[in-house]
Formats: sequence, C-alpha cells, structure tokens
Amino acid sequence: MSNTFGKIIRLTSFGESHGKAIGGILDGVPANLEIDPEKVQAELDKRRPGQSELSTPRNEKDTIEILSGLMEGRTLGTPIAFQFRNEDANSEDYDHLKNINRPSHADYTLTQKYGIRDHRGGGRSSARETASWVAAGALVSGILENEGIEISTYVSNVGGIEVKDVYRFFQEEEIFSNAVRCPVPEVALQIEEKIKVVKQENDSLGGQITCVIRNLPVGLGEPVFDKLDSSIGKAMLGINAVKGIEFGSGFRAASMRGSEHNDQMEKKEGKVVFKSNHAGGVLGGISSGEDLCFRIAFK
Amino acid sequence: MSNTFGKIIRLTSFGESHGKAIGGILDGVPANLEIDPEKVQAELDKRRPGQSELSTPRNEKDTIEILSGLMEGRTLGTPIAFQFRNEDANSEDYDHLKNINRPSHADYTLTQKYGIRDHRGGGRSSARETASWVAAGALVSGILENEGIEISTYVSNVGGIEVKDVYRFFQEEEIFSNAVRCPVPEVALQIEEKIKVVKQENDSLGGQITCVIRNLPVGLGEPVFDKLDSSIGKAMLGINAVKGIEFGSGFRAASMRGSEHNDQMEKKEGKVVFKSNHAGGVLGGISSGEDLCFRIAFK
Amino acid sequence: MSNTFGKIIRLTSFGESHGKAIGGILDGVPANLEIDPEKVQAELDKRRPGQSELSTPRNEKDTIEILSGLMEGRTLGTPIAFQFRNEDANSEDYDHLKNINRPSHADYTLTQKYGIRDHRGGGRSSARETASWVAAGALVSGILENEGIEISTYVSNVGGIEVKDVYRFFQEEEIFSNAVRCPVPEVALQIEEKIKVVKQENDSLGGQITCVIRNLPVGLGEPVFDKLDSSIGKAMLGINAVKGIEFGSGFRAASMRGSEHNDQMEKKEGKVVFKSNHAGGVLGGISSGEDLCFRIAFK
Amino acid sequence: MSNTFGKIIRLTSFGESHGKAIGGILDGVPANLEIDPEKVQAELDKRRPGQSELSTPRNEKDTIEILSGLMEGRTLGTPIAFQFRNEDANSEDYDHLKNINRPSHADYTLTQKYGIRDHRGGGRSSARETASWVAAGALVSGILENEGIEISTYVSNVGGIEVKDVYRFFQEEEIFSNAVRCPVPEVALQIEEKIKVVKQENDSLGGQITCVIRNLPVGLGEPVFDKLDSSIGKAMLGINAVKGIEFGSGFRAASMRGSEHNDQMEKKEGKVVFKSNHAGGVLGGISSGEDLCFRIAFK
Repeated sequence: MSNTFGKIIRLTSFGESHGKAIGGILDGVPANLEIDPEKVQAELDKRRPGQSELSTPRNEKDTIEILSGLMEGRTLGTPIAFQFRNEDANSEDYDHLKNINRPSHADYTLTQKYGIRDHRGGGRSSARETASWVAAGALVSGILENEGIEISTYVSNVGGIEVKDVYRFFQEEEIFSNAVRCPVPEVALQIEEKIKVVKQENDSLGGQITCVIRNLPVGLGEPVFDKLDSSIGKAMLGINAVKGIEFGSGFRAASMRGSEHNDQMEKKEGKVVFKSNHAGGVLGGISSGEDLCFRIAFK
Repeated sequence: MSNTFGKIIRLTSFGESHGKAIGGILDGVPANLEIDPEKVQAELDKRRPGQSELSTPRNEKDTIEILSGLMEGRTLGTPIAFQFRNEDANSEDYDHLKNINRPSHADYTLTQKYGIRDHRGGGRSSARETASWVAAGALVSGILENEGIEISTYVSNVGGIEVKDVYRFFQEEEIFSNAVRCPVPEVALQIEEKIKVVKQENDSLGGQITCVIRNLPVGLGEPVFDKLDSSIGKAMLGINAVKGIEFGSGFRAASMRGSEHNDQMEKKEGKVVFKSNHAGGVLGGISSGEDLCFRIAFK
Repeated sequence: MSNTFGKIIRLTSFGESHGKAIGGILDGVPANLEIDPEKVQAELDKRRPGQSELSTPRNEKDTIEILSGLMEGRTLGTPIAFQFRNEDANSEDYDHLKNINRPSHADYTLTQKYGIRDHRGGGRSSARETASWVAAGALVSGILENEGIEISTYVSNVGGIEVKDVYRFFQEEEIFSNAVRCPVPEVALQIEEKIKVVKQENDSLGGQITCVIRNLPVGLGEPVFDKLDSSIGKAMLGINAVKGIEFGSGFRAASMRGSEHNDQMEKKEGKVVFKSNHAGGVLGGISSGEDLCFRIAFK
Repeated sequence: MSNTFGKIIRLTSFGESHGKAIGGILDGVPANLEIDPEKVQAELDKRRPGQSELSTPRNEKDTIEILSGLMEGRTLGTPIAFQFRNEDANSEDYDHLKNINRPSHADYTLTQKYGIRDHRGGGRSSARETASWVAAGALVSGILENEGIEISTYVSNVGGIEVKDVYRFFQEEEIFSNAVRCPVPEVALQIEEKIKVVKQENDSLGGQITCVIRNLPVGLGEPVFDKLDSSIGKAMLGINAVKGIEFGSGFRAASMRGSEHNDQMEKKEGKVVFKSNHAGGVLGGISSGEDLCFRIAFK
C-alpha cells in the first residue's frame, strides 16, 4: 500500500505540501494508552524548519489537530486521525516552477509517473510529509516509555565533519544543545561554520545521522522477510534524501574477518551477555537485546 | 506478513534448512507467461553452494519441483508452488549444536523469540532459504526480459580487495568467468588467493555486491512509503548477513555538496537526459530511467 | 487492517459519531480522474438522515471537505483525504447513557473489547460512519461511469411489505420518488403507512435492500479467496444492522434442483449469452457479464 | 491477495484439481502448539468425497504431507507447508471438456479472465481446493480446543427438507451418524431418499448448512471493516456453490419489529446475560459471548 506503513500500528498519511492540509490516520494503537497532546506538539516543534538561520526559511507552525481516537486523554482503540492545516503556503511563489523540473527532486519522476503534479513546494514528495511521521511516532511514544526503551538520534556527520565516537548513546540535552543537533560541541561548532559558508555560496551539504536504541527486548523482528533491520531499513530509506543505511559495523564489515566481526557471548549471572556489538543489535533479523545501532546517509 | 514478500507478485516461502523440504508459493504472476523450467534450474544452479573449494561444503542439488500454476509451459494466472526436497540433510551432524548458540547466527535470538528452535543447519534462518527467492525471481524473469530490463550483479569487494570501477554494468560472462563472481580478472584472482588463506585459518571474510539495472522505465516506486529504493532496501537487508545498502553515491554523499551531487538534466532530441547519476537512478523514490545502482555489504 | 477496506482502491476511515470529525483517506485512486465535489455532496445528501419524519431526527449537514489529492478538479494519484466536521453533536444528550448498554447496539461489546468507550451516539460504531463509505464511493464513481457500469439500489422490503419484482433494475428517479426509496409507488405507500404506525409505538422495522449492477465486464473477482461475491459480501455485512446477504437465487437455491438452477449458455452472434441468471451474475467467484444481483437483510 | 486468507493466521493455498498437487502454507501459527497429524488426517477424511453412493465418485485419499514448521509434534512458529499429491487424477477423462463451458461452473469466467484455463476437473476452481482449507483449520484446531470453543456444523436443509430446530448445537456423533451429516435421523432419512431419486434423474439438489459456535470470548471482531460477521461472511461465501449467508434471525429480521428482535440483557450473579439471541452472537461486528449462529445456502 503506497501511503500506509506499519504492521501492528499503521500510519496512512495524506497531503501535498501546499494543499489544504497534511496529516494521517494512525490505526492499531491499543486502547487506554495515555496521550498528552502537548508532548506530541513538543516533538513536532523539534522537526519544524525555520528555527535557525541554518535551515530552510518556510515557517509553518505545524500545530497538530487530533480529530478522533482519543477521549479524556486516553486512546479508544479506534483510529487516531490528525492533521496540520497549511498556513504559510504561498502557492504563488511556485508559479515559476510549474514547468520546471528541479534537479535532485521528484519533479521529473512524479510528472512522468502520474501525468499530473502539484508543483507547489514538491507536492506529495515534500519533506514536509515527515511531519505526519513525527506525529505518529510521538503519539505512541508512550508505548516505548512504558517499556523503558530509549532512543538517541543525532547528526554525526555533515559534509565530512564527523563525530568520532561510534554509536555512542547521547542524551537529549546534549543533542539539542545546538542548532545542528550534533551532541559533540566542538564538532557542532565546526559544522555550523561550514553550513554558513556553504549557504552563502547557495549550496548545501550532505550528512549522516546516527541512531542508538537501548533496552529493546530480545525477539523483535521475523526470521525471514520482516526482519527487524530490513523493516527499519525500509522506513529509513523512505525519508527524503536518504541514500544509504548500515547496521552495526555496516560497510566496514566488508573489510573485516568473521573472527573480528563475530560477537562472542558469555553467561553472566545466568544471563547471556555479548562481548561486542558489531552486529548492531540484530542477529538473523531479530533483536538480540544489545543496543540497536544504525547510521543513515543524506545527500 | 512474516513469510510473504511483494505487492503485485508475492512470494510466500516455507521451510527449515534440514526439514523435509523448502519452497514457496508465488502469487500474482500474470497468465500466459512462458516459463522454461530448465532456465529456472540454471539460475538455481548458480546459487547452489558446494561448487568450488571456496564455498561451504554442503551439497544440495536444489532441483526445483513445480507443483501448480503451469500448463504446457505457460502460467495459468494461479499460484505457482514449488519445492526443493532436502537430500544432503545430515541432521545428526548438528546434534552437538542442539544447545549451543553459534555467534553471529540467529540461534540465540530464535530460541529467545519462539522458545523452540530447529537447531539443524540454522533451521528457518538458514541462508538456504534464499533458494526460494532465486526460484521466485527466475520464474518471473521473463517479465523483465520482455521489457528489455537487464541486471548485472557481481562481487565488487571481498575483505577490502575491490573493483575500482563504480557501478559498471558487467556482462554475465565476465561475472561468471571465475569462482568468486568478480568480473575483473585480476581482482578476482587476488580475492581467490585471500579466501584460500583465510579459509586455512578457519576464518571468513566480509564483502560487497554491486548491482546495476538498466532499461528500467521511468515511474516505478511510490512517492511516500513504498519508494523504489526503500522497497529494494527492505529486500536486500533481508538477505542473510547483509549489514548495509547504499544507492548511487550513498554514504559518500555525506561528504558532498549539493552542487556536486545534483544530477543536471538536459533535453536531447526531445528526451530528458541526465548528465550524471549520483542519485543511482531514483528520484523521490521513483525510478528516473537512469541505471538503478546500489551496493550491499556482507559481514 | 481494522479500519481499511479495499485492494486496489483502499479506504481508511476514522471518527467517532460525536467526536470532532469523521472522515477518511482514499488511496490508490488513479491520477487524472475528474471529480466534481458537488456531485459527491449530492450523493452524501441522499444518505443524510433527518430528511423526512420517517427517519432519525439528528440533523448533520455532512458537508464534505476534501483536504488533499485533488488539483483543479482532477486527482493527483495521491491519497484523497476528506472529513466531515460534527456540528449537531449534542454530547450532553448522551450523558444518561454513559453506563447503559443499549440492546441491539455495540455498547456492551465495545466496552468489553476495549475497556473504554465513547458512549456518545454509538461512538465508532455509529451508522454515521457510513458517510465516509458514501464519500469514498462517490469520489470514484466516475470510474464506473466511464465504463458504463450502472447500479440500482433500492428498498425492496420493510417489515414484510415487499416489491414483487425480483432483481429488477429501477431508475434513480423511481427510487427517489418517495421518502422510503422504494421504487414501486403502491409498495412505498404501504411501507410509509406502516413506518408511521410503528414509530408512534416507539418501535422500528427490519427490511431488505436489493442491488442490481449492470454492464460489469466479465472477469472481476478471483477464483479462490477474493471472489467477487465474497468480497461484496464482506462489504455488505459490514454495514450496520445487516444480518444477511444472498446472491441470485440465494436461499431459495436450497430448495431447487441443479437442473432448475443452472443457467444455460448459448452463442448469439458469436457472443456467449445466458438464458437465465439464477447465479446472480457470478460464476466461480468471477463476474459473468450478466447483471450482478444481490439482496441484504437489515434488522 | 488472491490466494491468501486470514489476518493473524494466514493460509496461502495453491493447486489445480488435476495438477501435481494441491496444498498451502499456513503462516502466523504460534510456536509450541501441539499438532497431531493423525487428528488432522481424521478431519480431512470427513471432507473426502467418494465415501458414500450419495456423493461424487472421485476417490482421492487426500493424505496430507506436512513439509515444514513442525518438530517433534510441536510448531516452530515458522510457516507450516502441506500438500496433497493427486493420485486419482485421470486427466484424459476431461479431454472432451477442453472447449466446453459447463453451466454453473467457472469454466467460462476463468477462460475469459485469464485467456488460459486448466480444464481438468475445474482446475483452480475445483471444490477439491477446500481440502487445503480443512487442513489449515485442522492444524490449528488445538487453539480453539485450548479455549474450550466448540463448533457444531451440520446439514440442515437439502432440497427443502429441513431440520426444524433453529441453531441447535448438535454433537459430532449425531451429525456423523449418517451419510448426509444431518443430525436429526428422520430428516436425514428423507434427505437420503430424495438424493437417491434425484441422482437417478442425473440431477442434484441445493441445501443449507447451519453452524453454531459456543464458548467464544466476548470481543472478537473489529467495529468497522473487519467485523466478525463480515469476515466469516467472506470466508463462507468463498466456499464453492454458496449463494447466501445469514446470522441469527437473518432474512427473517426484515419482517420483524425492533422490539421483537432486540436481545434484552440482564445481570445474573454480576455477569451480563442475554435473554434471547436474535443477533446470532454478534453485536456491532463484535462477538457478544452468546452462541455465534449462522446459516449458509448452497446451489
């Protein structure tokens, strides 16, 4: 299904960047889950562009309106519909682009595929669509919280300037201490400087994001097609401008020997413990209980 | 669905490595497609291990038996079921592994997930399962042939010894000219030497495979969740031991400027032509008509 | 998926009867289909209760707002989201029902299933939800129109007073000539009288609806699980208060001999013609080209 | 998906009546469920035709072969593949039917849909396909048994001769005490007589089957699209030759008043008890805990 993602909990999203609204329906959320709309909005505020001089200028407040599925702060087990009305949609700004295919955008492929295209701001292919993803994640983040699962996601490389620590779990305060969301202050500073220079030259930079998830239970993912890593891979490669993903040692594994790469296990107080985590927390497509670690590359 | 893959054409696979049989059901194949079982077998023979001293010793003939969906060499539009009976399944060889979790295998995670496990040869998580994938692909390869779509897949890196040409389309004769399926003879030779050394030390090596697909029509893939690259990513990350995937410039994009990365278009004889292909043949999740190019890393 | 229906075109619906809004996302609609919002609204107006003294008093205008997927009256191939804001939602009217389970309603089962329930007006189980179904059907009705497919749906029985003609195709003007949507005037009159009497006694009546679809192409439906009749059956049994469905001769088939029931074919001017249509337009789960005929019963 | 049925547990089936084999893959079965192949075979033996002079003469033993998913009598959580090799497939018997479309069969519609058809014994549309359904049900029947859920299914009407008791739960011994599987001996006798007469005239008879399921928990089924009754309806209407289904009062509801039909509830020892069951065990698409009762009509 083209506009639906997920198995147990499923997001169906809609909306063109400069249409009336974007949003989605989140189905499969269990009943009686507490949801605090303010917390959801707080997550959305982190995604919102236009917060610093380093990002794109469009200024949408992205205020979420929840239309169904909740009663008195609790889920009903019914679908949760939400939307973001478009406010800063200056459609006329795009009139000059009506017949132009911008390089590195979906303009050309969308037109070829559908024979029609909403040319305003990328239409359906706008990165603005990810607001619905963030909303979906924020709405059900309580499920992870209840299980003690924690996620650390941060910018680890911009234009080749990178965080040296591999798969370190950084705290949210460290990550959000600066405009580029890079948790190592000196790297963040260099990145900011580089972005400013490149921006003045009307250019942009690629980068990487690192994600470390801890306290996942053992056993998530299926042994064959719906492996945990391939499912996450599908999600991540679906984010606009992502060009690659690697788990654990990833592409470096190509140059490693099996003996180096294999994570040995031992029993400690009756519990299996891994001595290393080259696998990145997944064995045979199933979570091993170690930190789930991956990295994605953006153009 | 855990054991089903695909949207229009769907493979549901079954089987444990050392059970009675492995196989699958391929559904959604259009009627009246010609299928030559010998060609299918020829593809399967390429996958089969035990063909050189460089690979694992298990020797299964993997002779496909097609049970349904065909009549007089043509598809009926009904599901095509196929199976491989296991012959070289020396289950006793695995008795000593019954209570042992091999590192870098799914043994530990399978047991934790299901509370029961077929310990013989990896059970459901055996790479032998990919025989069903190859069968599925080979059965419908005529659809690609009819459209003139060609695929070049080859080993481009083993243990750090790599093919220098990036995303070159090699012919099948070049690729299969040696035991390691690396189309550049001098690189192939070095790789063979290295594998022999490492094998003597009871060790193994990681590697990379490069894939180049040409003559794809413009317009494959969906703008949001079922992007062409994210769907291929899911498939590739589902192959046993794969740790990463990148499209086009991939992880190198992180160090590039937008101006370097953007593939400019021009019109030649009324047709859009791209001057470069850093995107790897996909724009906004939709095929651009350029060669689709990706690389995967194995541990 | 609990709140998604359809294979090629899929409706995901949301909303509780007295929440902020109900609506849905229609996905899979081809690009470049003309949609006239006024025609869609006209179909919705037919569904709207409160139009005569014979139906329930709630008066929602059910004005559709389309949020995405359209540009200048044409579909973009992207999901079409729509919603109905609730206006006449007098939630306080339902306060006395908070802890009461009305017989023949979902109150009891919803509470048992989810442990929480929106008690206002049936919540998610309100028949108001069918407004989203009507919207979905109306949005894509142009596809049927372009193929010349016509649907005749009418009340054929209320409280035992019934239309004698079996599976006759009535015109829309005949059906909508009276408040009960029964195309035979004298039957309609009797039904109206009966409803008035029963309503005064604070009671209600069961009924039947007959549907005849003509000009369907041969070949719709799958031979095994997704048969045309079983798929329609699933849809119809999903309408609130429906207790049964039969195709063609239906339950009367139980008392018939095969020789009576079998629809003989003959060739007329090179075309296969059926001499009767006891099958109701479907053979082996696939449309035969004859009128598709079925009947549903309401409590 | 055309050849897949089910949500949590899914059957994907394959096979043409006179091909090499028919069978299926059952996916989603939990691990560690005990399965006794002999019990499965016993259920299949009940379905097998050719057991009395009253049914079709084809004599297939339908011996199930389980290919995967089991180890030492327990499920592994992996897909369970099974097959029935065709033995009594006298394909030549069908040569005269190659270009003939039998009335009341799928011959004509299959040919029109696919442009190709396995004409032997109905091909994919043969009722023999239901052997795979029976196998699937029998394989997981232990899940119902563990919950104390019991199913009573019996012939309640053949050619108009019918069982008077409505939705009575009959024991298996009563049902299988005669060749027509009608649990009321005097009705069974009349039916047998009638079938013999009609058979001599080379004709056949329609009929009805009644199903009563007891001890279902409250809460099965979804409030909107995947209602319990609409899902069962889809399954039942998928059985070859079924022309209708009704739940509880069904088509008789059309002639009833709401006050007659509504099942009143009362509290007995703290538990909700229904005073009647016109609804047939389902309210708003969700099981009410009362007996689930339905009836299907065959041509």
